[in-house]
Amino acid sequence: MGIKDIAEDFAALCKAGQHEEAGARYWAEEVVSREAMEGPMAEMRGVAAVREKSAWWFANHEVHSATTEGPFVHGDQFALRFEMDVTAKQTGQRLQMAEIGLYTVKDGKVVEERFFY
Amino acid sequence: MGIKDIAEDFAALCKAGQHEEAGARYWAEEVVSREAMEGPMAEMRGVAAVREKSAWWFANHEVHSATTEGPFVHGDQFALRFEMDVTAKQTGQRLQMAEIGLYTVKDGKVVEERFFY
Repeated sequence: MGIKDIAEDFAALCKAGQHEEAGARYWAEEVVSREAMEGPMAEMRGVAAVREKSAWWFANHEVHSATTEGPFVHGDQFALRFEMDVTAKQTGQRLQMAEIGLYTVKDGKVVEERFFY
Repeated sequence: MGIKDIAEDFAALCKAGQHEEAGARYWAEEVVSREAMEGPMAEMRGVAAVREKSAWWFANHEVHSATTEGPFVHGDQFALRFEMDVTAKQTGQRLQMAEIGLYTVKDGKVVEERFFY
């Protein structure tokens, strides 16, 4: 699969609310996930850690609505724009988030995901 | 200026329709501009070439409306999302474009801009 097909499939899964399936299908073993914040979530290395981070996030947030726009492709990278309306379960705080995910693909797998907000 | 201030100022200029002023203020001498296409515009190196490309684009497109969303920041990079409704003057073709610009900042200047669509 070329970058466009991978980007389209990854985006389609996110649009269907299947973010974890998108990861399961495309994360490389050595994937690195980077957040634009300090702390323990800033950089997770390896598919097991990234899967755990994702599971933690979905377990700790109630998602009221979510949209995914894209993909936007360039070379071996693609970008998606996410909008989410969520409540953090621990604090009860509801917030509307807009962010961009930038994915780098190598040998048909996502080797880095980097989130901008 | 930190990355957030630069990103905010760059975005504010784009939101005001002053894309070329944003470039004039923040492009580094050695800036590289990359488009997600084949051909002579795929990679322009150096501020003179990038300025020329930008001037060419604005001279050859009639912009009916344009919006900029962002900035979305991560580390030394920021992303902007552009929407434009334009007519290409040579062909008369009108098109609605959505794209993401990814900017890499070093020493207070943009050293790379990379466009995704």
